Amino acid sequence: MPAHKPHQMTASDIVRAIAAGKTTAVAVAEACLARIAEREPQVEAWHYLDPQLVLEQARALDRRGSIGPLQGVPVGIKDIIDTYDMPTEYGTPIHKGRQPQLDAACVALTRRAGGLIMGKTVTTEFANFFPGKTRNPFDPQRTPGGSSSGSGAAVGAEMVPLAIGTQTTASTIRPAAFCGCVGYRPTWGDLRCAGVMEASGSLDTLGLIARSIDDIALYRDVLMGITPEALPADAGAPPRIGFCRSPMWDQCEPETKQLLENCASRLAQAGAAVSDVELPAEFARIEDAHRWISSFEFARNRAWEIDHHWDMISETLRNNRIRNGLDCSEKTYREARAFAERCRLRLDDLFAGYDILLTPAVAGEAPPGLEATGNASFCAIWTTMHVPAVTLPLFTGPKGLPVGAQLVARRDDDRRLMMAARWVQRACA
Amino acid sequence: MPAHKPHQMTASDIVRAIAAGKTTAVAVAEACLARIAEREPQVEAWHYLDPQLVLEQARALDRRGSIGPLQGVPVGIKDIIDTYDMPTEYGTPIHKGRQPQLDAACVALTRRAGGLIMGKTVTTEFANFFPGKTRNPFDPQRTPGGSSSGSGAAVGAEMVPLAIGTQTTASTIRPAAFCGCVGYRPTWGDLRCAGVMEASGSLDTLGLIARSIDDIALYRDVLMGITPEALPADAGAPPRIGFCRSPMWDQCEPETKQLLENCASRLAQAGAAVSDVELPAEFARIEDAHRWISSFEFARNRAWEIDHHWDMISETLRNNRIRNGLDCSEKTYREARAFAERCRLRLDDLFAGYDILLTPAVAGEAPPGLEATGNASFCAIWTTMHVPAVTLPLFTGPKGLPVGAQLVARRDDDRRLMMAARWVQRACA
Repeated sequence: MPAHKPHQMTASDIVRAIAAGKTTAVAVAEACLARIAEREPQVEAWHYLDPQLVLEQARALDRRGSIGPLQGVPVGIKDIIDTYDMPTEYGTPIHKGRQPQLDAACVALTRRAGGLIMGKTVTTEFANFFPGKTRNPFDPQRTPGGSSSGSGAAVGAEMVPLAIGTQTTASTIRPAAFCGCVGYRPTWGDLRCAGVMEASGSLDTLGLIARSIDDIALYRDVLMGITPEALPADAGAPPRIGFCRSPMWDQCEPETKQLLENCASRLAQAGAAVSDVELPAEFARIEDAHRWISSFEFARNRAWEIDHHWDMISETLRNNRIRNGLDCSEKTYREARAFAERCRLRLDDLFAGYDILLTPAVAGEAPPGLEATGNASFCAIWTTMHVPAVTLPLFTGPKGLPVGAQLVARRDDDRRLMMAARWVQRACA
Repeated sequence: MPAHKPHQMTASDIVRAIAAGKTTAVAVAEACLARIAEREPQVEAWHYLDPQLVLEQARALDRRGSIGPLQGVPVGIKDIIDTYDMPTEYGTPIHKGRQPQLDAACVALTRRAGGLIMGKTVTTEFANFFPGKTRNPFDPQRTPGGSSSGSGAAVGAEMVPLAIGTQTTASTIRPAAFCGCVGYRPTWGDLRCAGVMEASGSLDTLGLIARSIDDIALYRDVLMGITPEALPADAGAPPRIGFCRSPMWDQCEPETKQLLENCASRLAQAGAAVSDVELPAEFARIEDAHRWISSFEFARNRAWEIDHHWDMISETLRNNRIRNGLDCSEKTYREARAFAERCRLRLDDLFAGYDILLTPAVAGEAPPGLEATGNASFCAIWTTMHVPAVTLPLFTGPKGLPVGAQLVARRDDDRRLMMAARWVQRACA
């Protein structure tokens, strides 16, 4: 896909263009600000954006003697992630005006690499179910997905090439899949969450949203705090792919099922070893385990807001996540954790035969309405398994809207996942 | 031990006395403030303490209609744990005046239970090696241990009955062992760390410091967000105890070795099944794995301070934890994590034969000098194993100073650990 306008460039292209003296951080920032001015009235991806602060950062980057691995790349930051120079309000009026005194680790690492913090993207309330104002950039009557709603919409609307979200259930993969982006949830524990609001620590990770898998690989290395190493230009050997319809297959829309079936056939024709994978029967219970673990931890993490500002918490949150969490016994919580860990070990073994699994990311196109963020089931299972996952914008649904396809790999195999994802994307191009 | 003065009472006794109308939160707070006024000039356990704010809280608690499980109990909070009404400065001048807008989960849960937040206790710089001002309450020429230095010293000096610390290496067990307290590090992942500065998330836990194991059990339930259930009055069956001299045995002082040997004999005489435990040889490498994991994560978590305030970071921290972390490759980090996880599974199996292990907590009495916080090796191994640990003030060293003995149990067996610890304490009384 040729990208002539700066706001359509990938992060990698921006860095190369700046390094070659073909553009500047200021020019890129101005192009993105112009795009935002054009699209934001409809999309509403941003919770906080100060064009003057953006241009100040851009000018400082252009004055910097060195070219960082994210030099001049505008990045959207989900508003549950602390920034020392912008408020961080967790998607709730309770924390209106909350101003952190330091950056979250991921924000500091982004700046160190030359990244430009564009602004704070809309999150659902406490990164949970109750939506913010953001609309799907492909259809303003539809949800962008959540909880990283603004991060998905901002990249999908070509406002920024990169955004950080988080994922405790489906909060990165789902909005990326609904907004036509590449989304990535890392192996649990890999990318530091210091300075990020904890929803449910046993499940939380950062999540990255981008235009290309190469940008994901680049940004992941930056956030790991290591010297970035580009994915090899060569596509590599065809991956061994397990086609995992998953226990939630019946919740998929018929068109999505067909798109995935066609995709599996096409990958086999392109030379991949593709075979069907049936997960162990007990994996159907992972979603329940996810509910107990996430709710138990969430309800404790929000003890301060529950006790000081109960009437400012949405009914959606009070009657679901918090109620479930307060009703969950320690025994149930502990059993859910132990069950999840047993399943993780079984899944490690299953991956002996596969490089990646191909599986649904979402039921279909973003559903109409802004009052909910879509079915999370296709992600909850993999989130609970702590495995890395990617969604690729491979499909177009019956209404012409993007539908992502999810690939997952073994824990710690994030790099293998990215190489396989690029192979898949090329095979489907 | 009879405790007549309010500042010497256990948390459980305070709650009972208040519930029975024999004292009030204000009276307890005043007694503790008086004790602090007396001892603080020598001990310097507190980084922030506002007597007016303490008394305001106490009066509000006395007005409350209900009696919480920690009603009127003064608690010290390590200064890396956020409090909405007191600054939280992480033990560094970089964050002077940093004022959180909300409580950490553990602070909010403490308040919900009727606990009184007495003040913020001194931490080493970023909960790492470089010490704060605190001195050992039993000898001002000696370290109180760290990094939860003020929490250990405040309880040891009878200023408060309870304190929260954290542990990434030895930061709760060590100061508790040096200050004559009961210390507890929970199963990793059990007690929420939302609102607590992350040092190294793969290892960090809260830590509790108290005067009795019953208080530890009570406070743990409060912080789990469950209805507290007292340990049964009956001591229960004698535990199966493995005497684990550990790979660090040679670092123990001769007197400590003898005290532990005597203790093991005494427990056997009291009816426990005591046998020697040899850890698998590879466990000697756990301390190296700990170093890589903790350093890699710490260096990334502090990216903001490294980039903005490098010259305000101590040389100790720059030349050790941060340098190690920046030098550690992703491969080394990932291998260390995988190695640690394999050892955890082996240790789970080993616990089939034991309820608890008896093992050194520290090399001996708190060493002279305030420039370091003592040998951390006796805790690093168990911290990395994610197992729950308790230190009991069972011993007196050659200089008449307290020396703790450490007990550890299988992951998730925190309650069993506490019951066994109480059995041990009674057998040694």
